[in-house]
Amino acid sequence: MAEPLAPGSVIGILGGGQLGRMLSVAASRLGFKICIYEPGSDCPASHVANAHVQKPYDDAEALQAFAEAVDIVTYEFENIPPAALDLVEMLCPIHPNRDALRISQDRILEKDFLTDLGMSCAPYANVESGADLAAAVDTVGVPAILKTRRLGYDGKGQVRLKKPEQAAMAWTALKEVPSVLEGFVDFSREISVIGARDQDGRMVCFDPGENIHRDGILHTTTVPAAVPHSLVTDAVLLAGRIMNALGYVGVMGVEMFVTPQGLLVNEIAPRVHNSGHWTQNGCVACQFEQHIRAIAGWPLGDGTRHSNVVMTNLIGAEIGDVGALSADPAVGVHLYGKAEAKPGRKMGHINRIVKTCQDSPATLRIGSDCGHRGVFQRT
Amino acid sequence: MAEPLAPGSVIGILGGGQLGRMLSVAASRLGFKICIYEPGSDCPASHVANAHVQKPYDDAEALQAFAEAVDIVTYEFENIPPAALDLVEMLCPIHPNRDALRISQDRILEKDFLTDLGMSCAPYANVESGADLAAAVDTVGVPAILKTRRLGYDGKGQVRLKKPEQAAMAWTALKEVPSVLEGFVDFSREISVIGARDQDGRMVCFDPGENIHRDGILHTTTVPAAVPHSLVTDAVLLAGRIMNALGYVGVMGVEMFVTPQGLLVNEIAPRVHNSGHWTQNGCVACQFEQHIRAIAGWPLGDGTRHSNVVMTNLIGAEIGDVGALSADPAVGVHLYGKAEAKPGRKMGHINRIVKTCQDSPATLRIGSDCGHRGVFQRT
Repeated sequence: MAEPLAPGSVIGILGGGQLGRMLSVAASRLGFKICIYEPGSDCPASHVANAHVQKPYDDAEALQAFAEAVDIVTYEFENIPPAALDLVEMLCPIHPNRDALRISQDRILEKDFLTDLGMSCAPYANVESGADLAAAVDTVGVPAILKTRRLGYDGKGQVRLKKPEQAAMAWTALKEVPSVLEGFVDFSREISVIGARDQDGRMVCFDPGENIHRDGILHTTTVPAAVPHSLVTDAVLLAGRIMNALGYVGVMGVEMFVTPQGLLVNEIAPRVHNSGHWTQNGCVACQFEQHIRAIAGWPLGDGTRHSNVVMTNLIGAEIGDVGALSADPAVGVHLYGKAEAKPGRKMGHINRIVKTCQDSPATLRIGSDCGHRGVFQRT
Repeated sequence: MAEPLAPGSVIGILGGGQLGRMLSVAASRLGFKICIYEPGSDCPASHVANAHVQKPYDDAEALQAFAEAVDIVTYEFENIPPAALDLVEMLCPIHPNRDALRISQDRILEKDFLTDLGMSCAPYANVESGADLAAAVDTVGVPAILKTRRLGYDGKGQVRLKKPEQAAMAWTALKEVPSVLEGFVDFSREISVIGARDQDGRMVCFDPGENIHRDGILHTTTVPAAVPHSLVTDAVLLAGRIMNALGYVGVMGVEMFVTPQGLLVNEIAPRVHNSGHWTQNGCVACQFEQHIRAIAGWPLGDGTRHSNVVMTNLIGAEIGDVGALSADPAVGVHLYGKAEAKPGRKMGHINRIVKTCQDSPATLRIGSDCGHRGVFQRT
């Protein structure tokens, strides 16, 4: 085991969104200080960080000062400019490693990597020209979906093709940037595995969750996923093989499709993942803490699911529902401190606990098991 | 119900210790920003706060700016100079209210208040002179303990009297400040109730915990306390009556002694309390979140105990044990980010989960129920 990072050390996080925010909170539990590098002001992570370097990703001087001020660096989104990482990496260790980032930043590299591991993906073809796309439509078939190789997220940078004739229009819509054509997959469910791997190769995977998307954005994750035991085993083993192959350190999210032919890997995310937010209310050690433990060289925590959870994202104006939601005792509320509720923006999430431990009656229940709520309530 | 404080609002906290730190983290979950007022630099709460006003409590200008910059104010320790509160209160609501603070700041006011409510305390007498003390020894008897009326904590400001002849020495030891002589109580256990009361008078109490002290400092809290159901009811009702009588808003800790004659109230703390730290790993809504919900006019959360917990403080050099402790999957680690491990200083705590939910077998267990830990571990 590597020498664990001592409490009081400073962890730098590239990116200041909600994932950085929740990483920062988890890090504080372990006694670490967080320094956020994020060009935007008043970002979600800055509210709970010890320091916020508000500089652009091409400011070499600021990046250097950041890297020198922190003990290790991690990131909370994939699309960090490689030049910034090159600079930081010279001064400070970065986890997860650059390979994982490089592969997950590019849909073709990602699919080639998975295929080389012997894993199944949706049929795909590289598209760098209009001619490539025509050929890809022949190979992959329609319906299909054209996605930019890089920088896509939450359904952005994607166009659907129902007929071969739509190819030219789709190519124009994506501004003719290098892309991938993916065939549609006949899947019954999407599940994801959130796994953590430490610096010696130990791994802990959380129970797979089942994801429902709406308008290209994750809507709910339900844990446990309603899949047979054998599939859970397959899913966890796939995630483990991916992390091992990359020499990965930290938490990774792996999205998979459940098909009649077994599991297809859809996407890997080299970071804590929206579909792992349920762990905050379902486990002793949540995904954020596992990530901090892994990159800090600490033993991984306990990822046992003690409760079943349905995580629901609060998108845009749905943040307005929080008043009613917060009155539901089964709901854990997690808001991101974003000022403006734009359409499509992730403003927070709730974890609805579907089943918690029905404890044996060691103590008296007054009215209900709700911490003696019954006695006093006088609405 | 009062109009709930909107996410994005700023909560000011007077004091920057570990209680402020954990309040800040809980507030972030609900979308609030935290501004800490604390004279000390690099304080535990500042690491996870949006802002830190590092000014003394007698800086009227700084206090005014602080009060104007925040939407509501709370505090994380009792011994805030009243003049500072007078100033802040003119500009911004303070919860819990001044009455609760005034009473809990002064051991005589506190005991008189409890006695007036018809509750039992240890025998006590007010001591303002050597003659008072001699009379008090006659009334209260020995062994007894002489405590300063104000500013005592963690066993500080206390002297034990085994014999009446030690009175003069004790009086000198406490520098002849107004004090209280407390008779010893024949108690079998100390328990505490952590309760939350909202702005409309609704209350939720957590299950009582059982406290063990070492060298005058809380060592462990075990939940549930090993007491009969009837006593749990009594304890919760006592806490509820105290909070109601004070028109209290927020979380309060009430320490009680279990005696052959029933419960004696030892002490009330108008704030989140060390003996409530177990709730972080035992409940959906921990004491810190309940406090923020109460003062923000939100519905109180779910204080149901889903797991049994033993909370152990890490005092001084015990922080060095965290390497081994963090490897135990049943342990939740909570460190405070304090730079120096002085003797007697609270550096962190752990919550050891004694019994969690043994879930019905909805998913496959590989090796153990530890989130598929078994598969990959290759130490």
